[in-house]
Amino acid sequence: MDLGLSATLHTNFGDAVDRTRAALNAQGFGVLTEIDVRATLKTKLDVNMEDYLILGACNPPLAHEAVGIDRQIGLLLPCNVVVRRNPDSDDEVIVEAMNPQLMVQVTNEPALQTVATRAAAKLQAAIDSLNTTSRVP
Amino acid sequence: MDLGLSATLHTNFGDAVDRTRAALNAQGFGVLTEIDVRATLKTKLDVNMEDYLILGACNPPLAHEAVGIDRQIGLLLPCNVVVRRNPDSDDEVIVEAMNPQLMVQVTNEPALQTVATRAAAKLQAAIDSLNTTSRVP
Repeated sequence: MDLGLSATLHTNFGDAVDRTRAALNAQGFGVLTEIDVRATLKTKLDVNMEDYLILGACNPPLAHEAVGIDRQIGLLLPCNVVVRRNPDSDDEVIVEAMNPQLMVQVTNEPALQTVATRAAAKLQAAIDSLNTTSRVP
Repeated sequence: MDLGLSATLHTNFGDAVDRTRAALNAQGFGVLTEIDVRATLKTKLDVNMEDYLILGACNPPLAHEAVGIDRQIGLLLPCNVVVRRNPDSDDEVIVEAMNPQLMVQVTNEPALQTVATRAAAKLQAAIDSLNTTSRVP
């Protein structure tokens, strides 16, 4: 099982973030949280790193279903989507979504399988839509 | 491996949230995000559930170390801490922190072991401090 579902975009960082949010919204995922890891580590530790955001994406019907099956599943919600500049290639932005199948793997709760599979399909569709629009003219 | 490190508090929900934040801060974890799952599901789906918060806890030096080892680890950051009312017992609030050992298990990255072990020890100390102060006189 891959931990992340990923796409590589050849564009600037702000555009990659905007497209990622739009792709998630198109699949029914709202972004509930946003952590600017670069800014946080600069402020707290005065260290420098490349642009790196963690978006917390939530599809409410799927989240409701998962919580109904296993109240502990909030430990793995929302689905993180990382948008980060490739430190080895200035014009590449990597977008990675947490693979929801992880929920089944780590909880040993087979009843989560169907909701995880549907969540994975929607996140994969969001990632695929980024792959097909990855180059700015 | 347990997915969560947990404590049960016999107090009201707001007090449990305040104590959880204080216990995390005492171990160097700031709370970067907060998701009110109950309010979100009420707004989005008009369903009712018990009080249920997801706090995103981050210890900056440990997060920096983890990202330095594996750039993909943001998929599992910050460490989620769920504070939720026990639906079967009105006077109990359950606090569960994601076990950071999960990072090693799902990434197959043995170099994360030492940072995961230190993060787990700090979160366990935070949880233990809640257990010892769990009853309001």
